[in-house]
Amino acid sequence: MRDSQTLKGSVVIGVDIGGTNIDIGVVDKSFTVHSHTRFKTDKTSPQKMLGDICSSVSRLLKHLDETGVSCEYIGVGSPGRTSDNRTIIRAGNIPYKNTPVAEIIENFTNKEVYLDNDASCALYAEKHAGAGKNVSDMIVMTIGTGIGGGIMINRKSYHGHNNRAGEIGHFIMDKNGPPCPCGLYGCFEKYASVTAFVEAARKEAEAHPGSLLFELAGGNPENIGGRTPFKAMYAGCEVSKGIIEKYIKNLAGGINSLNKIFQPQIFVLTGGLTNEGEIITEMLTPHLLPEVTAVLSPLGGRAGIVGASLIKKEREE
Amino acid sequence: MRDSQTLKGSVVIGVDIGGTNIDIGVVDKSFTVHSHTRFKTDKTSPQKMLGDICSSVSRLLKHLDETGVSCEYIGVGSPGRTSDNRTIIRAGNIPYKNTPVAEIIENFTNKEVYLDNDASCALYAEKHAGAGKNVSDMIVMTIGTGIGGGIMINRKSYHGHNNRAGEIGHFIMDKNGPPCPCGLYGCFEKYASVTAFVEAARKEAEAHPGSLLFELAGGNPENIGGRTPFKAMYAGCEVSKGIIEKYIKNLAGGINSLNKIFQPQIFVLTGGLTNEGEIITEMLTPHLLPEVTAVLSPLGGRAGIVGASLIKKEREE
Repeated sequence: MRDSQTLKGSVVIGVDIGGTNIDIGVVDKSFTVHSHTRFKTDKTSPQKMLGDICSSVSRLLKHLDETGVSCEYIGVGSPGRTSDNRTIIRAGNIPYKNTPVAEIIENFTNKEVYLDNDASCALYAEKHAGAGKNVSDMIVMTIGTGIGGGIMINRKSYHGHNNRAGEIGHFIMDKNGPPCPCGLYGCFEKYASVTAFVEAARKEAEAHPGSLLFELAGGNPENIGGRTPFKAMYAGCEVSKGIIEKYIKNLAGGINSLNKIFQPQIFVLTGGLTNEGEIITEMLTPHLLPEVTAVLSPLGGRAGIVGASLIKKEREE
Repeated sequence: MRDSQTLKGSVVIGVDIGGTNIDIGVVDKSFTVHSHTRFKTDKTSPQKMLGDICSSVSRLLKHLDETGVSCEYIGVGSPGRTSDNRTIIRAGNIPYKNTPVAEIIENFTNKEVYLDNDASCALYAEKHAGAGKNVSDMIVMTIGTGIGGGIMINRKSYHGHNNRAGEIGHFIMDKNGPPCPCGLYGCFEKYASVTAFVEAARKEAEAHPGSLLFELAGGNPENIGGRTPFKAMYAGCEVSKGIIEKYIKNLAGGINSLNKIFQPQIFVLTGGLTNEGEIITEMLTPHLLPEVTAVLSPLGGRAGIVGASLIKKEREE
């Protein structure tokens, strides 16, 4: 975390809205993030959440102003669907309802706002500042509450004719699986998101009360989070190893499937799961087809902020 | 079928190699096919098969020459993988083994040969002469022995960095399904190709010896082909109706899945299944997501020849 006092010239403020946290920071020309702040997402209403964002951004703007640094514009990445890049129609995690996100922040801050989907922002970050700097075709897979995707073809991000393409978490991976709110059933993300991973781990802990996993959860499987099974596996828990291996096989199956369709040069993995680090790719690679390359995002926690700061650049390309 | 005697100026010969038949014809500037000939694919060796093609093409060339029409070049669409557009490395249905298809036909005919994958040719045909003339993003799905695909994005066909993209029959649709020669398991085409349809119909006929389907098969389920269950359904066979409905649901599931990923403006269906006609889209549409448009190829049996004739045009774009 660097302070913006070292900054010169002009910068961009990037806002990364997540279902759990909101990350805000100042991004300089070399994609370094300064004055990174994080706070909980207030999901009681979009107005409350946007109020928190406006206050935080205003403080940053004041600080930049005092130090003689000018902010060119504000980039905002958010879950949910936008058809005009100004309004979020709806999102799974945040109670948007045709919320004019860009307008609200613009009116409050007096700065131009560029808004885009968070999965697209993750793609922009990898394309310009991350693992995709030197490739032409790439899929960025965000593995968290669900599975989101950004598709780059010939260095252009692909959105489909209606701006809804890239829902790579929603192809049918189990034709006998349960319905998904997306309108399909047995979707890939039901087996390979962090949510799916945690649910499976809780079930297995319940079924194995003698396991180290159950013990680490203090005897209550509800205490299990995305990292608990890994902790238990490192300490020798076979039940946890089994859960992780089964999960990784599903994740690999999805990546392999997308590879058959797209044959990108690289898959870049990001999102909550990748906090666990290189163990993910170590366990994943043996299950991937020989022609598949999957790497973790080198940007870590700053991908969302950097990606949001790049929306304007993407629009101009 | 029109005769080439009505032709003027210059034309292209299109060769459509299939696992069952080979179709050859003369294509004029308005994509009309003349002197269409069809013969069985001799699969004993690529040499024998290519010998048949060379003889047939030579006869056509001689005929064109006699009528004062010049053939610009020969376009060849074939199943299988090519990395250089000259040689077919291998194919599922034909015993290619790094066979220099283009060179062999060029040496024999003294005409320039343009070679491409048959699924790509199907895309070229729809793009220039079929259902995709006025759209920018399209998926052409060939439903036959397997499921092949052509992907068009911004009016460019997409092949991936290694010329292997578009294997849309090979995403995992049943994570508990059996292994597929492609390296994955439970692939979409195992549930939605004509092969899968016929296998399911034979099993059901076996299980229902009192059904009209069993009767139509003369008491031997092995006699059931891709059209038998439709014939039986039209005559009131409930068993057949059930088979078809189950099959259509899987096909719709795959189309919906690909739609979530690509959001093309249109899916164009071609291949053996579509010989059955509009009943396919009639039964399919209720299972498709509201935003999905799927139509049958308007080119019918001439799509392969027309597509092969368009390879050169595609390369030049």
